[in-house]
Amino acid sequence: MKYVLPKGFLASGVHCGIKKFKKDLALIYSKAGAKAVGLFTKNKVKAAPLIVSKEILKKGSPIKAIIVNSGNANCCTGWYGVRDAKRMINTVCEHLKLKFNNVQVASTGIIGRRLPIESIEEAIPRLVKKLSEKGLKSAASAILTTDRKIKVGIEKIAVGKKEVLISGIAKGAGMIHPQMATMLSFIVTDARIDKDALKFALREACDKSFNAISIDGDMSTNDTVTLLANGLAGNKTIERGTKEYGVFLKALKSVTFKLAKNIVEDGEGATKFVSVFVDGAKTTRDAFKVARSIANSCLVKASLYGENPNWGRIASSVGASRARKIKPNKFEIYLNRICVFKGGRFAQPHKEKFSKAYKRKNIEILVKLNMGKKDACIWTCDLSKRYVEINSHYMT
Amino acid sequence: MKYVLPKGFLASGVHCGIKKFKKDLALIYSKAGAKAVGLFTKNKVKAAPLIVSKEILKKGSPIKAIIVNSGNANCCTGWYGVRDAKRMINTVCEHLKLKFNNVQVASTGIIGRRLPIESIEEAIPRLVKKLSEKGLKSAASAILTTDRKIKVGIEKIAVGKKEVLISGIAKGAGMIHPQMATMLSFIVTDARIDKDALKFALREACDKSFNAISIDGDMSTNDTVTLLANGLAGNKTIERGTKEYGVFLKALKSVTFKLAKNIVEDGEGATKFVSVFVDGAKTTRDAFKVARSIANSCLVKASLYGENPNWGRIASSVGASRARKIKPNKFEIYLNRICVFKGGRFAQPHKEKFSKAYKRKNIEILVKLNMGKKDACIWTCDLSKRYVEINSHYMT
Repeated sequence: MKYVLPKGFLASGVHCGIKKFKKDLALIYSKAGAKAVGLFTKNKVKAAPLIVSKEILKKGSPIKAIIVNSGNANCCTGWYGVRDAKRMINTVCEHLKLKFNNVQVASTGIIGRRLPIESIEEAIPRLVKKLSEKGLKSAASAILTTDRKIKVGIEKIAVGKKEVLISGIAKGAGMIHPQMATMLSFIVTDARIDKDALKFALREACDKSFNAISIDGDMSTNDTVTLLANGLAGNKTIERGTKEYGVFLKALKSVTFKLAKNIVEDGEGATKFVSVFVDGAKTTRDAFKVARSIANSCLVKASLYGENPNWGRIASSVGASRARKIKPNKFEIYLNRICVFKGGRFAQPHKEKFSKAYKRKNIEILVKLNMGKKDACIWTCDLSKRYVEINSHYMT
Repeated sequence: MKYVLPKGFLASGVHCGIKKFKKDLALIYSKAGAKAVGLFTKNKVKAAPLIVSKEILKKGSPIKAIIVNSGNANCCTGWYGVRDAKRMINTVCEHLKLKFNNVQVASTGIIGRRLPIESIEEAIPRLVKKLSEKGLKSAASAILTTDRKIKVGIEKIAVGKKEVLISGIAKGAGMIHPQMATMLSFIVTDARIDKDALKFALREACDKSFNAISIDGDMSTNDTVTLLANGLAGNKTIERGTKEYGVFLKALKSVTFKLAKNIVEDGEGATKFVSVFVDGAKTTRDAFKVARSIANSCLVKASLYGENPNWGRIASSVGASRARKIKPNKFEIYLNRICVFKGGRFAQPHKEKFSKAYKRKNIEILVKLNMGKKDACIWTCDLSKRYVEINSHYMT
């Protein structure tokens, strides 16, 4: 089941010259017009392609293609930005015989530099020619920036007697934050599904995946998640509240979860995968505040990188979280299931066991607030010297 | 005027064995009982000495001594914590013939390890013996942790015909954040001043200094600023709203500003001193949100470290700040007075001038929001590989 696309979808990726050597232009195409829903960054500085795509989605026309470039974010590029994004769409329309409102466009990479639009336009015919049922992997690699690995998630389910496929790709690396920062993800499915149900499913799936990850606390200008459903599986239309919706949602969640997890694992310079669970909070808001405070702490993350059992910094982050209902004497901290903090003090776990737990690649931090029944989870990575290295030189 | 103490104040610092080689125990003493005001961390996890000191301050007795250890925060140490903090006070009382409510206590260093209280008690007689008018420098070095340099600020003013001195010391380095994180500062003056005026002056001076700095966005459990005024200058009592109050406040501000600046310059691994100014905001809240969003961005700070003119990340941080009134096409960004962003796009400054500006040790980022008349300023430093190195190994 590796890299398969749902019925009626084709994809491709090529090198057009924005990057020096790597693929930097991707296309996803659906023969049948697909219902489309999207989620976009909350950053007030928004990239041009995002503005254009959002407007097209609002019109509600079926979507048949998504064109994506990497290496250049087409953001803060003045009036050129929107024009260039539209030129990308128009060139795709020309070669695939589509209408403007059938296409979505996305970009990721450096901010503020004008898109080399001629190179992109020149490459689009090649890109269209390369479209293939086997093109998912190629498209997945063409949307990457500082990522080390492609990110693909695929799920197959049965809806009635029909087989339904959901395939997604993503790019992530630095700048990842709750509220989805420099993150692109494109998910396609051949499910026949009600538009409202599709919208709802994407929102729910993202909340527990893309919106629950954090690399460095920065929120980007280009974040986009798009979900296309072309209905070619031929199943009975999935409606909200039905058993089939539940099955679809579960599969979608496992695709977005896998992609989100891949993004964190591939965080710039990351050497650890860190899950921060908070339970026993009075409110969900409190739970997330505590989880984010830990996940965004440079000190906690640097100490995880150093495999240095500095649980005091975790306790300090809990206290600094601005969550409303916390009592220093009531909360407990567990690190890979070993209790390290309880009753306002170090729990004195078995020394060897504890330092062993810290050396694992997967770190699970659990904070029990013991104030109520709400919980939250955030995934993040450690802060390494490599992160600083990558980000001090990106662009040169 | 180097390292002088105001009339009636003595200070000293010794090595008691918490750290391996460096001084780790400081004492400040006033012959005359001093009016005292303090500001403390907002972290809900509070260190024991802070809890004890705050309670003593509330009682309003004159303060005659401050005992401070470095190397151990005496935080998250369970019921031992408060007992050990009180033992520090009691030993000082014994040797200086003071009452419990005349003393303040503070600690800084590693969280969660019990204080080696016997070593401290043993060293206090030596510390008392060493008390001297020339002891400020020694005390200043005994309160440091990962700091590279001592931090001292001194101002002399005339109030009426009397000479008034204000001398302050501080420790900072990592974990520095608005709302004062792992930061200790002790300021003493011989001014005779009304208690209410003293309180007000400290708050105002801190807002534009200690509360306006950020190293890594973490807020600590031990932050304390204490201001003592023993009145021995013999001036007419300074009251709020008078000309003399203005003179005193100005001098106090310049002491706290110098200390805050020293803390940022000495930020863990810092290679740059960064001032973030925001003006033209609709509200002060908005101005601070934008300034903090920039000052806390790992991406912005890593790019400053790399001397990499990535102004796009600054623009992105403005957008991500959650300030209410921002328009991407209206705000402007200046870097060391060179306009880099205007009208929603890169302002294309002179290339050589621009990259030269980025190479300076002092970086001034100015964001004009052009939405109103409020402003804010935050000082910070860059994010270096050395920061990660220090913080991944601290404690081992």
